[in-house]
Amino acid sequence: MYSLYHAPLSPFCRKVRLVLAEKKIEVKLVEERYWEKDTDFLRRNPAGKVPILRANGKNMPESQAICEWLEAKHPEPALMPEDADAAYEVRRLCAWFDDAFFNQVTSNLLYERVNKKVQGAGYPDSSKVKAGAKAVKFHLDYMAWLLEKRRWLAGDVMTLADFAAASHLSALDYTSDVDWARHDVVKEWYAKIKSRPAFRGILSDVVPGFMPPPHYADLDF
Amino acid sequence: MYSLYHAPLSPFCRKVRLVLAEKKIEVKLVEERYWEKDTDFLRRNPAGKVPILRANGKNMPESQAICEWLEAKHPEPALMPEDADAAYEVRRLCAWFDDAFFNQVTSNLLYERVNKKVQGAGYPDSSKVKAGAKAVKFHLDYMAWLLEKRRWLAGDVMTLADFAAASHLSALDYTSDVDWARHDVVKEWYAKIKSRPAFRGILSDVVPGFMPPPHYADLDF
Repeated sequence: MYSLYHAPLSPFCRKVRLVLAEKKIEVKLVEERYWEKDTDFLRRNPAGKVPILRANGKNMPESQAICEWLEAKHPEPALMPEDADAAYEVRRLCAWFDDAFFNQVTSNLLYERVNKKVQGAGYPDSSKVKAGAKAVKFHLDYMAWLLEKRRWLAGDVMTLADFAAASHLSALDYTSDVDWARHDVVKEWYAKIKSRPAFRGILSDVVPGFMPPPHYADLDF
Repeated sequence: MYSLYHAPLSPFCRKVRLVLAEKKIEVKLVEERYWEKDTDFLRRNPAGKVPILRANGKNMPESQAICEWLEAKHPEPALMPEDADAAYEVRRLCAWFDDAFFNQVTSNLLYERVNKKVQGAGYPDSSKVKAGAKAVKFHLDYMAWLLEKRRWLAGDVMTLADFAAASHLSALDYTSDVDWARHDVVKEWYAKIKSRPAFRGILSDVVPGFMPPPHYADLDF
């Protein structure tokens, strides 16, 4: 059986958890206080990051590389299209969310307000929070622009790109940082993905000291 | 024919250029002053980044997604192994260089000293330059540790992981930021990859105002 070393609100961990759950792969979740840089943890992963998938006696870091590996080892249901152009679009959007969205939104909002407090790393930087609150609007607009042309973010089937996006948005929703009223198409997309059985684990996450809003786990939000 | 919008010392552009050259794919290189945020450029790529591959009338950003697409469309010579475990290791290392190495080394050294000057963005931050000079040692040690067990970074054949690493190191070598005397195995690995015909274009790059050291383009450095 696999183990996944993770942190509850980490979007990169959530992406891997969603893939594991969607593919119905059994996994033991181990919560990791990665910022404490515990020696055992650093031996598993010198980069000091989560997620790490432990499989067949090996420790595997890097969320996107893990997801590609899971896709190869457990191809059903497919989350990466076989067609090269369609696969490009999935990978482009995964990078968009895990790089641009992460740096402009997630790290400015979630990391400033929640991670800093949990890790005892000081107070939120209000200029960062402001920048994040502004950037999330632009990103929701971009998602709406995509979803007006497509059923799912990367095309007409659900893919890893939807999981990458939903991982960031669900973590931000925990702190009420997503304005779902901004675009109906985005809200409908999130309602669809949120109602999948794979999402259940994520919706039951609790971070001590932070209560999610009532709509967080509500499928009719 | 493809076009590639690029900047000469960008490691992400170099990775794509190396893949194109190794696979003998004809490409028109277009130098992009991406920081000027020219309207035409932002229309091609709202993220405002290079590289962008223009292929079949489409603009494709995100270097790793481009490389995976090129691998699927032009499989020979292979730069990504078919075996899932071996492919994981390649993707893990690409992420390692494009994320950890980039943030700890490339952005602290190259971006502080060259990009800031070229872009008129002020003076280098000496604390960042110091952090970068310290981090590059750790990364060279890690590469040596890998190369003592393997012929190439991800295993016994040359892969995209070697191109990702060589892209960062070659850009840093342009400003004499790599201590090749630190590890013989790393120097031997770089000499091997540097002598490939695919590397020629990169070794003839010139950035006005910055002359590379004499050893930069020398295959017997």
